[in-house]
Amino acid sequence: MSLKQYLPEVVESRQKDLKAISTPERLLLGPGPSNAHPDVLKAIARPPVGHLDPFYVDLMGEVQELLRYAWQTKNRLTLPMSGTGSAAMEATIANSVEPGEKVLVAVKGYFGHRLVDMATRYQADVQIIQKDWGEAFSLEEVEEALLNHRPSILAMVHAETSTGVCQPMEGIGDLCRKYDCLLLLDTVTSLGGVPLFLDEWKVDLAYSCSQKGLSCPPGLGPFSMGPRAEAKLLKRKNKVPNWYLDVSLLNQYWGSDRVYHHTAPVNMNFGIREALRLLAEEGLENSWNRHQMNAEKLWNGLDDLGLKLHVPEHLRLPTLTTVVIPDGVDGKAFSTHLLRKHGVELGGGLGSLAGKVWRIGLMGYNSTAKNVEHILRLFELELPNFS
Amino acid sequence: MSLKQYLPEVVESRQKDLKAISTPERLLLGPGPSNAHPDVLKAIARPPVGHLDPFYVDLMGEVQELLRYAWQTKNRLTLPMSGTGSAAMEATIANSVEPGEKVLVAVKGYFGHRLVDMATRYQADVQIIQKDWGEAFSLEEVEEALLNHRPSILAMVHAETSTGVCQPMEGIGDLCRKYDCLLLLDTVTSLGGVPLFLDEWKVDLAYSCSQKGLSCPPGLGPFSMGPRAEAKLLKRKNKVPNWYLDVSLLNQYWGSDRVYHHTAPVNMNFGIREALRLLAEEGLENSWNRHQMNAEKLWNGLDDLGLKLHVPEHLRLPTLTTVVIPDGVDGKAFSTHLLRKHGVELGGGLGSLAGKVWRIGLMGYNSTAKNVEHILRLFELELPNFS
Repeated sequence: MSLKQYLPEVVESRQKDLKAISTPERLLLGPGPSNAHPDVLKAIARPPVGHLDPFYVDLMGEVQELLRYAWQTKNRLTLPMSGTGSAAMEATIANSVEPGEKVLVAVKGYFGHRLVDMATRYQADVQIIQKDWGEAFSLEEVEEALLNHRPSILAMVHAETSTGVCQPMEGIGDLCRKYDCLLLLDTVTSLGGVPLFLDEWKVDLAYSCSQKGLSCPPGLGPFSMGPRAEAKLLKRKNKVPNWYLDVSLLNQYWGSDRVYHHTAPVNMNFGIREALRLLAEEGLENSWNRHQMNAEKLWNGLDDLGLKLHVPEHLRLPTLTTVVIPDGVDGKAFSTHLLRKHGVELGGGLGSLAGKVWRIGLMGYNSTAKNVEHILRLFELELPNFS
Repeated sequence: MSLKQYLPEVVESRQKDLKAISTPERLLLGPGPSNAHPDVLKAIARPPVGHLDPFYVDLMGEVQELLRYAWQTKNRLTLPMSGTGSAAMEATIANSVEPGEKVLVAVKGYFGHRLVDMATRYQADVQIIQKDWGEAFSLEEVEEALLNHRPSILAMVHAETSTGVCQPMEGIGDLCRKYDCLLLLDTVTSLGGVPLFLDEWKVDLAYSCSQKGLSCPPGLGPFSMGPRAEAKLLKRKNKVPNWYLDVSLLNQYWGSDRVYHHTAPVNMNFGIREALRLLAEEGLENSWNRHQMNAEKLWNGLDDLGLKLHVPEHLRLPTLTTVVIPDGVDGKAFSTHLLRKHGVELGGGLGSLAGKVWRIGLMGYNSTAKNVEHILRLFELELPNFS
């Protein structure tokens, strides 16, 4: 190696003697990640194959078809983005917004604000309607806003992870058709765990994540684009200002051409394939019913303990429950204690709910009667020590 | 569940009876992904923890410090982007380019062209210098171009995966300082396998991937930003036009504040932590020497078989070798046969080398004498059947 003599000296690693990895056991009952199904973890640990291998190309088709089932859509452009749910969120914005266009964001929690931030970066003329954190929009409020603002896109959150509110979707898609705008929907905390019908609800753009209702680790962002949004993409004046998330390029890889775009995260896709297969095996309705039953069991149990829930029952998400921290209780100290002593993770409040609520997630693999009983027992046992 | 009566009927999955996953065994000797180290796969399969768990926060620090070692840099802003190498590539552009700024791209293969496409999307005034695919730039050529174009950023590829060329870097960083421009470097096919000194070479922005020299599956994109690029980021007039890859936001999560940005792909980070630990355990120089020795063994063996290499020896990458497909041989049929019959993946040519070369990767865990002997034996045995 003749180059050797010109090379600088290597600075030794300060981490040279680091030990092999060892991770703590956790029961993840926060806003996500949730625990992954053991079969999904086994799938992720299989030796990788090439991203153009015929086996992998078949697997891509399976993942797409299973995602369409989970979302109840026929959208051709349904695929997992090679990033987390936030990347898929940005993909819906990046591919649909052109500079100067009016985007109306219905904000009722943290993730609505994130949509505002993203749309602004893509130079949208962003308009906002707001509800208090813990409420949902009525059809009338949506129609009034559409009439007032006449946006190209209405962006909203189906399952708001920061508040635990499930936005009723009936009729909203029809309004968007009436006022000629696209409907963009965040389904991060609903996919797999809450009734969700993209086509029936006339949703044009949707995104989700892998680590909640799907029982897979975080790292993939399911994405779906319907025919109206696709038509808009084809008519763009300029290239999508984001290379990695450009659906017109991704379509050549995920579509029939299989043209190389980027090296796919193959192992994560092994995992989501297995996660979606398990969901199809259980059946969507069975999964939705399981989430609803376990959530009701949690709500009743918390009520028995004298705790108050932040969201009225008819708007409550079965996947994520916001519990009001009682007066005088240090919520952060309580959840830190649960993590340290019992290995159980709860979530804290975000934004206007910071310090006011705990967030309890019962998602995918973790939505079980046993987990509900466990967390209720911990509240009963430990909460009195923090009052 | 009172909502139930209003719900549409669920359309059954066409994949309801899909079997549990089973993947083929592959020896991945193409341009990547390469096979992952078995300990890395075990790490990835550990049950996830929360992305704000104190254990995970410590692990993030380990990953950062180990990445600094692998790159030989002290850059504070060194972290794995939550996407593949292409996401990290886009992150270097998105965070450093402002609209209208001159970006000079030194193109000598496929990935140079990708840098041009990305920089154009971020509204740079892109200027290009080019070399034939298989050559590298001289210091004089770089200086002349810097003088002519006076760019804000010079972007180039250290290890061009499409050609197998290693760009000599001595002196280029000094020229960039002299002409007051940032140096942005693609190290996708060099990190871990080829001598690489970010600080010594005065590189301001660099990116790489997880699935080559690091022996981890694809899914993370190591990224590093030096103080000069950080100063430029701080002086930006507008927000970075990419939310997911915005380093000013990521810095709050990966820096000392640990402010939630997006849910990290925790399992992939378990994997890269272990991959980088194994690299530190072996030692960078030992890994570089191993890659060089095995590559030389491959080159000599191919020469003995009468095959020609595309790149002159002094510019050859030890991680990726381009082999000229002999006249009359159907290169694609040969590599398809190796995959089907022997489970061995080779790469084909891209762009101007399509149909002209095979690409043989010996990267990370796969750079072994045994793999070299195996692929040479397959060439000896099978190639005569394709002539």
